[in-house]
Amino acid sequence: MASGSKLWGGRFVGDTDPIMEKFNASIAYDKRMWDADIRGSKAYAKALEKAKLVTAEEKDKILHGMDQGSEYFSNALYIFVLYFSVCVFYQELIGEPAGKLHTGRSRNDQVVTDMRLWLRDAISILKGNALQLITTMVERAAVEIDVLFPGYTHMQRAQPIRWSHWILSHAVALSRDVEQLQEISRRVNVLPLGSGAIAGTPFNIDREMLRQELAFDDISINSMDATGQRDFIAEFLFWASLCLTHLSKMAEDLMLYSTKEFSFLTLSDAYSTGSSLMPQKKNADSLELIRSKAGRVFGRVRPQLKHIRTPLEDKEAMFDCYDTVHAVLQVTTGVMSTLKINPSVMEAALSPDMLATDLAYYLVRKGVPFRDAHGISGKAVFLAESKSIPLNQLTVEDLRTASPLFSSDVSAVWDYSSSVEQYSAPGGTAKSSVAAQVEHMRTWLKKQVQ
Amino acid sequence: MASGSKLWGGRFVGDTDPIMEKFNASIAYDKRMWDADIRGSKAYAKALEKAKLVTAEEKDKILHGMDQGSEYFSNALYIFVLYFSVCVFYQELIGEPAGKLHTGRSRNDQVVTDMRLWLRDAISILKGNALQLITTMVERAAVEIDVLFPGYTHMQRAQPIRWSHWILSHAVALSRDVEQLQEISRRVNVLPLGSGAIAGTPFNIDREMLRQELAFDDISINSMDATGQRDFIAEFLFWASLCLTHLSKMAEDLMLYSTKEFSFLTLSDAYSTGSSLMPQKKNADSLELIRSKAGRVFGRVRPQLKHIRTPLEDKEAMFDCYDTVHAVLQVTTGVMSTLKINPSVMEAALSPDMLATDLAYYLVRKGVPFRDAHGISGKAVFLAESKSIPLNQLTVEDLRTASPLFSSDVSAVWDYSSSVEQYSAPGGTAKSSVAAQVEHMRTWLKKQVQ
Amino acid sequence: MASGSKLWGGRFVGDTDPIMEKFNASIAYDKRMWDADIRGSKAYAKALEKAKLVTAEEKDKILHGMDQGSEYFSNALYIFVLYFSVCVFYQELIGEPAGKLHTGRSRNDQVVTDMRLWLRDAISILKGNALQLITTMVERAAVEIDVLFPGYTHMQRAQPIRWSHWILSHAVALSRDVEQLQEISRRVNVLPLGSGAIAGTPFNIDREMLRQELAFDDISINSMDATGQRDFIAEFLFWASLCLTHLSKMAEDLMLYSTKEFSFLTLSDAYSTGSSLMPQKKNADSLELIRSKAGRVFGRVRPQLKHIRTPLEDKEAMFDCYDTVHAVLQVTTGVMSTLKINPSVMEAALSPDMLATDLAYYLVRKGVPFRDAHGISGKAVFLAESKSIPLNQLTVEDLRTASPLFSSDVSAVWDYSSSVEQYSAPGGTAKSSVAAQVEHMRTWLKKQVQ
Amino acid sequence: MASGSKLWGGRFVGDTDPIMEKFNASIAYDKRMWDADIRGSKAYAKALEKAKLVTAEEKDKILHGMDQGSEYFSNALYIFVLYFSVCVFYQELIGEPAGKLHTGRSRNDQVVTDMRLWLRDAISILKGNALQLITTMVERAAVEIDVLFPGYTHMQRAQPIRWSHWILSHAVALSRDVEQLQEISRRVNVLPLGSGAIAGTPFNIDREMLRQELAFDDISINSMDATGQRDFIAEFLFWASLCLTHLSKMAEDLMLYSTKEFSFLTLSDAYSTGSSLMPQKKNADSLELIRSKAGRVFGRVRPQLKHIRTPLEDKEAMFDCYDTVHAVLQVTTGVMSTLKINPSVMEAALSPDMLATDLAYYLVRKGVPFRDAHGISGKAVFLAESKSIPLNQLTVEDLRTASPLFSSDVSAVWDYSSSVEQYSAPGGTAKSSVAAQVEHMRTWLKKQVQ
Repeated sequence: MASGSKLWGGRFVGDTDPIMEKFNASIAYDKRMWDADIRGSKAYAKALEKAKLVTAEEKDKILHGMDQGSEYFSNALYIFVLYFSVCVFYQELIGEPAGKLHTGRSRNDQVVTDMRLWLRDAISILKGNALQLITTMVERAAVEIDVLFPGYTHMQRAQPIRWSHWILSHAVALSRDVEQLQEISRRVNVLPLGSGAIAGTPFNIDREMLRQELAFDDISINSMDATGQRDFIAEFLFWASLCLTHLSKMAEDLMLYSTKEFSFLTLSDAYSTGSSLMPQKKNADSLELIRSKAGRVFGRVRPQLKHIRTPLEDKEAMFDCYDTVHAVLQVTTGVMSTLKINPSVMEAALSPDMLATDLAYYLVRKGVPFRDAHGISGKAVFLAESKSIPLNQLTVEDLRTASPLFSSDVSAVWDYSSSVEQYSAPGGTAKSSVAAQVEHMRTWLKKQVQ
Repeated sequence: MASGSKLWGGRFVGDTDPIMEKFNASIAYDKRMWDADIRGSKAYAKALEKAKLVTAEEKDKILHGMDQGSEYFSNALYIFVLYFSVCVFYQELIGEPAGKLHTGRSRNDQVVTDMRLWLRDAISILKGNALQLITTMVERAAVEIDVLFPGYTHMQRAQPIRWSHWILSHAVALSRDVEQLQEISRRVNVLPLGSGAIAGTPFNIDREMLRQELAFDDISINSMDATGQRDFIAEFLFWASLCLTHLSKMAEDLMLYSTKEFSFLTLSDAYSTGSSLMPQKKNADSLELIRSKAGRVFGRVRPQLKHIRTPLEDKEAMFDCYDTVHAVLQVTTGVMSTLKINPSVMEAALSPDMLATDLAYYLVRKGVPFRDAHGISGKAVFLAESKSIPLNQLTVEDLRTASPLFSSDVSAVWDYSSSVEQYSAPGGTAKSSVAAQVEHMRTWLKKQVQ
Repeated sequence: MASGSKLWGGRFVGDTDPIMEKFNASIAYDKRMWDADIRGSKAYAKALEKAKLVTAEEKDKILHGMDQGSEYFSNALYIFVLYFSVCVFYQELIGEPAGKLHTGRSRNDQVVTDMRLWLRDAISILKGNALQLITTMVERAAVEIDVLFPGYTHMQRAQPIRWSHWILSHAVALSRDVEQLQEISRRVNVLPLGSGAIAGTPFNIDREMLRQELAFDDISINSMDATGQRDFIAEFLFWASLCLTHLSKMAEDLMLYSTKEFSFLTLSDAYSTGSSLMPQKKNADSLELIRSKAGRVFGRVRPQLKHIRTPLEDKEAMFDCYDTVHAVLQVTTGVMSTLKINPSVMEAALSPDMLATDLAYYLVRKGVPFRDAHGISGKAVFLAESKSIPLNQLTVEDLRTASPLFSSDVSAVWDYSSSVEQYSAPGGTAKSSVAAQVEHMRTWLKKQVQ
Repeated sequence: MASGSKLWGGRFVGDTDPIMEKFNASIAYDKRMWDADIRGSKAYAKALEKAKLVTAEEKDKILHGMDQGSEYFSNALYIFVLYFSVCVFYQELIGEPAGKLHTGRSRNDQVVTDMRLWLRDAISILKGNALQLITTMVERAAVEIDVLFPGYTHMQRAQPIRWSHWILSHAVALSRDVEQLQEISRRVNVLPLGSGAIAGTPFNIDREMLRQELAFDDISINSMDATGQRDFIAEFLFWASLCLTHLSKMAEDLMLYSTKEFSFLTLSDAYSTGSSLMPQKKNADSLELIRSKAGRVFGRVRPQLKHIRTPLEDKEAMFDCYDTVHAVLQVTTGVMSTLKINPSVMEAALSPDMLATDLAYYLVRKGVPFRDAHGISGKAVFLAESKSIPLNQLTVEDLRTASPLFSSDVSAVWDYSSSVEQYSAPGGTAKSSVAAQVEHMRTWLKKQVQ
């Protein structure tokens, strides 16, 4: 690059180390922000006219050149990656007025304006993806509400629950992610343009007019903060990490449920791959990928925090993070809408020992304090294990060795369906409670798209 | 510990590896949550009475025992660290009704309720600390509004700005932290009690009554999500990382400004330490500590995300994070209210080359497009460097070799005070604009304490 | 603390913010390093004598006082946590010569010497723990060499392997950890004493004599590097993260194998815990803890790197990391030496589809290129799935629809024992190959303790 | 992609979600490993011939096709990014024998072999880059050995040192990095080929022959460990983080030294950039980039550890990490060989208070215990500050108010050159000691290239 084409050409005499050029080029992801950049520049041209720094005619030339650029970029296969090449390009399209476009504007406030415009749109798309996934999950939960299977804690069978209850536990977490994304969106949607390098902008540039043109909610309060901060990127990256963590945990459960040993469900072939060596293999690649992405995105948060005031690689991080969440949300929607469950295997996996809590509750209903009831039930479990029989095969006589309060009505305990129906308080796994959760989520979803 | 004192005593026959005991003990930070735990238990006792699972008399015994426990704990030097020791303790204070307190309640929903109660209070304290710091900064900015000094980018002198402008750039970032903390607070303030282990709670426990008793805003929607999730902790840890990052960046600047070479300011002795070897040393230890803490807290975020559904070390992380932010905010307030600035040194650090942008603006005002003006000003900088003289020592003749538009009125450019006054748009460094920022922040602060 | 008791008392006039004191106290973990500190100080007293900076009598007083201190500390319940309190303590024990002990020595080179001495011993203990674990695993592999079970990739059944093969895959990874620990040990075992604050030590202190006294392998090359660097801590923390990751992955497999659905093995009660609500629960807490610790330790690596030249919290990190690995290695040894496997369940989990690769190899032996054989075997798998029968229930006629080369000798394929015996190349799962791995590891273990 | 072209075509019937394809494609960085892949495949073809699985003629066809592929790839602008496209490509070049190349080899052992071959070469290049940088630094230290400047701790002036001493403190740290890289290299240079998917390889493939063909030092011990582990990548990434941290700390110092306020040195224009707004700006972009890269690479370590047994994005991480370190080492070499120091400014920055330790040593030489001498010197510092004069302007009478031992010979203390000459012990900043360090490093460097 000839030294003349650099904006700081006047002062420099040495050449730049080519590795340095490459370094800088590699972080120039401006090729994805041209549209935001053009929107920002057009608004700025109007503000320059209002401040009498360009004439109406010059402004029109700039707007026209920008529109030509826009058309060019939307058809181009390959976009200039260097900031300064873009400048030269506009120079050619617009002519002399292009040289006035930077009056009072610095690369600092220009780039961060572009990023905020871009991210505002990206967040809107991600919100849509997330809502689509939540909708899929809620509707699946509604359809399959009658399927029971084991709820696990610490990977061990804990209590019988509804399969829908499991689905909704993940949908609810994702709904918090959507709410948090909205909050971040408000902090993103603040206009930095008109902050210059650090000190602000001279020449009576009308920042309120810029805000309206670009549909920002607010104007940045302090010009140093506006140009030197990227905490909105750090917030977005952390949000993505948390959202991907939720998806990752769900994928982890699904991987377990899709093992041969569990056999609770089967992934669609569209989300599985085979093995180059073993013809029988069908790997849940999609789930592994979903599971792995939280770490990738999280790995970007720390460098972002560290360089929050001397931003580097912030655009690369923003794009990579968006692409990842965008893809993962869609793949998860695909997985959740196409997987097939095996209800009979799921229900067959319920075992009488999972009703040991119910056995204790049986005694509580007869007036035994829970602490004692828990101990008695534990003795029954131990007895069944010693005899190598299921818990529900203990005779009433066997049970009476643990407590005299057991009588023949204990047989009613061994019913998985009535077990789950106990949990009818809000949030529980009884059918009425799960149905209420579905309704709650449907109402919430409706509110989101208004 | 005798096997009988374990709640699961009924079933187990083997002994526990002592290292395992220690492992578990080391993560039992319950000693800080006894107050929250007692509040939760008292509310639950009332719900049990309403559900007719304890009598009014039993409830009263429980409440009384809890109050005794509370008195004991507030005077104790050392608090039981193990969950089960606490259970035994209550057993003794309360007698038989203690055994009923766990009816339908699991350690899962109990602990997460305690954590949410504790964190709600902690957040409220941190908000107070942050507001105190912001107030200190805003009032200092108001008092020292007339002091100019160099604004830096990339650690190189960029443009003259007000010292207050620098202070406010950090205060504004902290005000965003306060707003984000409020949002997190809303997600923290949700009642999980009544979720049991995972399936929910039986026996018609009135969760709405529990919510009111404990002054939560909402009830958790899904019991699996409520007991198995700790994303509110992950959010809090990330918030702390971001807030500490803001403080860290401010401390980094202050460290630089307090070097001998900059000499812009002097820390109070209360925030400095000496050296065991070098008698003259006065180290800015407080700033180094402030700077270092973001990393410490951030190091806890990832494990928290990884184990978001099988929470481990979550309480340790919550306490450590709170303690750190609590201390750092106070130390920073101390530092900011006691440091002394050296206005004459700060203004003496302004140098004419920092007005090169103003030189370009001079030409813009004479109709030169900014791009060209930038190049001409660059040539002037180069000329002054070649002659080894300050930029403002160039004669009008010298300047005319770069552009014929320079004339004697260029001398007006070399005035730092009028340079900063150019930036009068909202957010800029002009006196009126900085004063407006101070007012904006004062208004914001008033709103926060209402 | 009276200002007089601070080493820098001469210069300071202000008081220190009490939160600052607490901050500093909280990072003073010197209570665990008193022994290393005394060893270092005694060696330094000898060097001072050699340099004629103390007399023989003064040296003896110092050594005697140090020995008294040592006796005191080994019996004390609670140790001073502040550096300067320790100084005062020695002053009292030793009298005037204590004031000479710091001649030419700074807190900088003193503390890093203590850390290197301490870590050298700690590494030696961890190496012992790791070797004990590896020995347990290798001997278990030797005893249970005949047990077959499914090898998994992507959590899906892949090929039949020996249970011992699985054990050894983890033992081999741990043996690399031991080798890496040795390498780190060499970089730890370098003497920094005699580096002063940053510039070095005056007065002809004999560093070679110090090296010999303290049994270091080498002397640090550059005094600034010696006092200002903590990369040995960062290396140690990363080593711990990697080692814990290996243990974590093993624990993850064991958690899966100990689910009801897999039922391949049962943990000893000594490494399990129950549930406060569900009497039947037996949770693999030990495995969850093992799995969780890699993240905890890793969270400390980054702050360590960031502050590698202004070390903060380095001692806390070192101790916490040592304690964690020390405990986890012992718990894992306990788990691995007490768990019970269920060989019949493990072998019953082998299914004919896991021999699909063998079916392809059958064809390869008849001259079919592997690529084609893989395709034919895949068709057979699909056929069996369509018929809902196991792969080995396909008739020869069925198989011939995929390839005419199948004949009755195909029945020999369906033998798991002969399948594993194919893999007799070094590193494979054939009995001879696994036995060779056991011998290899035994030889390696012998070399380590020499 | 038609289903027939997938290796697992036989079994699958559904289509793959296009986002999944993209997902997989995005992690297929095989385009950089074709050379390693061809070397591995050629060696494997020879082993197949020895095992009589291909004929000599078939082997030759494979070798010939591979050589054609090699020629094609080295001239191609764009390389297939999908594993299976590559397979189809070879099929066409080689014909039927291509189908035999996968006999007993799985994608698992193939890919990890490619990675180890590739990384072995990459490590060798990085070692060369690091040695070049160290050489530059050592020779610069030799040339500029007479320049003194302030040594800093906690960013405050501590003691006068040689500029060369500072350079060498960084060179020494880098030499440890080189040694650690060699150790990692030994663990990388182990042959995994012949491990199949997990169980090993059948058909008597001669692994020792493969090892020799590919010049590996060792053969992997256990096939599951060989295919399922990527700890060599995690080790490499951490190594890179540590090395980049060293460079980052050096860059941080250089950024400080190149501020206007310090003015110790000037970067070459080749490593600086300007500003789009401020014509006078010359930013140390190269230093900022060097400083920022440690975080980028470190962000990749954690995901790598997490997925150490189900490797994902491991190749992307390996390439990115190599590229980053490769570029940063070269840029740092450029910076260090072209920057200009300003010796007069550096020496002018030495101030008498930096000799306060020397003042204490003066008293030590007169028999005062160091602790007391430190206090007396501190009083002198305080006195000078009170009088607002430099420490060396105190009269002997002034000094005597602190201690009667001061006499007129104290004037000899105020000589920076003789101050540094005190530190003549190994590792110190005396000229003889720094020269010895230079020699030490030269000898070390010679050993590295042998």
